[in-house]
Amino acid sequence: MANLQSIMDHAVAVARKAGEVVREALSDDRKVMMKSSAVDLVTQTDQKVEQLIIQSVKEKFPSHRFIGEESVAAGEACVLTDDPTWIIDPIDGTTNFVHAFPFVAISIGFAMNKQVEVGVVYSCLEDKMFTARRGKGAFCNGEPLAVSDQTDIQQSIISTEFGANRDPEAVDKIFCSLRNILSLPVHGVRGAGTAAINMCLVASGCVEGYYEIGVHVWDIAAGSLVVSEAGGVLMDVDGGELDLMSRRIIAANNRSIAERLVKEITPFRPPRDDSPPQKL
Amino acid sequence: MANLQSIMDHAVAVARKAGEVVREALSDDRKVMMKSSAVDLVTQTDQKVEQLIIQSVKEKFPSHRFIGEESVAAGEACVLTDDPTWIIDPIDGTTNFVHAFPFVAISIGFAMNKQVEVGVVYSCLEDKMFTARRGKGAFCNGEPLAVSDQTDIQQSIISTEFGANRDPEAVDKIFCSLRNILSLPVHGVRGAGTAAINMCLVASGCVEGYYEIGVHVWDIAAGSLVVSEAGGVLMDVDGGELDLMSRRIIAANNRSIAERLVKEITPFRPPRDDSPPQKL
Repeated sequence: MANLQSIMDHAVAVARKAGEVVREALSDDRKVMMKSSAVDLVTQTDQKVEQLIIQSVKEKFPSHRFIGEESVAAGEACVLTDDPTWIIDPIDGTTNFVHAFPFVAISIGFAMNKQVEVGVVYSCLEDKMFTARRGKGAFCNGEPLAVSDQTDIQQSIISTEFGANRDPEAVDKIFCSLRNILSLPVHGVRGAGTAAINMCLVASGCVEGYYEIGVHVWDIAAGSLVVSEAGGVLMDVDGGELDLMSRRIIAANNRSIAERLVKEITPFRPPRDDSPPQKL
Repeated sequence: MANLQSIMDHAVAVARKAGEVVREALSDDRKVMMKSSAVDLVTQTDQKVEQLIIQSVKEKFPSHRFIGEESVAAGEACVLTDDPTWIIDPIDGTTNFVHAFPFVAISIGFAMNKQVEVGVVYSCLEDKMFTARRGKGAFCNGEPLAVSDQTDIQQSIISTEFGANRDPEAVDKIFCSLRNILSLPVHGVRGAGTAAINMCLVASGCVEGYYEIGVHVWDIAAGSLVVSEAGGVLMDVDGGELDLMSRRIIAANNRSIAERLVKEITPFRPPRDDSPPQKL
């Protein structure tokens, strides 16, 4: 069995190194390549950071598997097995990165038996290292985190994202949900531009609830553990159990806020992360 | 004539002191009082910080006038004359403050002959001091700022806010504008939760354009100078000249992005800041 503490230590060390690369790249010129759409950018840094993380983990844990955003984009399978698996988003918030908008995260989750055991989210422009081990609590720069104790949705901040989907039917549903929630009313709606940091804001007690349809497993694996270890709850947008591969998530401070969000969200189902690749 | 450098120095010093009060308050319990609606909060800190700023300025510049969010809420007139006038938002982003969401600003503008001469925005949780003097450039912690040189709206991040208005007709228009802009498509839509910081993000080159209907003069006076001194442009949401009292603003990196936003925004007119007070 893998030593979870050494995995956590390695994840933190490599996330910090990756953060340095990201910060350095932001002081250089940013050469941007387009991926699937104008709102879904990938940069050379993205690929470089993912390779840095995977190489470093492979040296120390040669038998472990990987699910990484860039590897999947390059055609590798995205399947979560019972094997020890590192789930990596080298730069969560690529659009923010391209614009130097201050929320950019390296997200590293580690799962065994399909359960996330270690979650590390490094908000590298803020220099905040969020860490969690299952059953051992969540921390930011070593300080313990706790979710907000608010149970009234009208006293809450909710975060979400418009995402990269510009299909009019999906956008209709995204706007419908957003308008319902805004009209409750809530204190405010925010969006950091990265799922991982939205979830860390829930874990920190700044945001009561975060929901999104269209995220990927590498966006949410690490952050989901940070939320649950800070005392929060996770569920599907229809109120069922969270399925990391379903591309749908609610992460909230408590069940009351999460279930209130379920009532207001118009759900839809994007293709799953582990569905067979579509031919282009 | 007032010495503008000494005014700038005083604004920076008192903004920094105000930021300390805000940070201290966030480590204490936050006792919240409700103002006009669930999304428009005012805290004891808000009033305390405005008094701190006004008292400090009065001692040094006894003849100067003030427009402050809390003073206006308490019934004072909101009229911009030719006299030297300090325009103060003690906490821009009150909702963020209440939730410890990381964007909270002290906004201090100084105007003479109805023209903003000095703008200071202190993002006190990030510890970023944004400063501008008319004709002398804009700075963050002493480093010169410059807007993005992007002219293509599809390569841009746009920021805006839902604001505190929950009147269904206004919300319709806010959502209509947002959907038009998202569908261009743009790289992303963000909202920091404070007008002053949204404008500083434009000045820093992280965001190409910011627009909002429903802001107040104390939210935008200082930030507008930071944007224009960083090379950006200001206009009304209908493309006309910016009117600080009109509660409508576009702040963009250049005219091309600003005019593209004008085409997509469904405008409406909230009551002006300098309209006679309504009887309750």
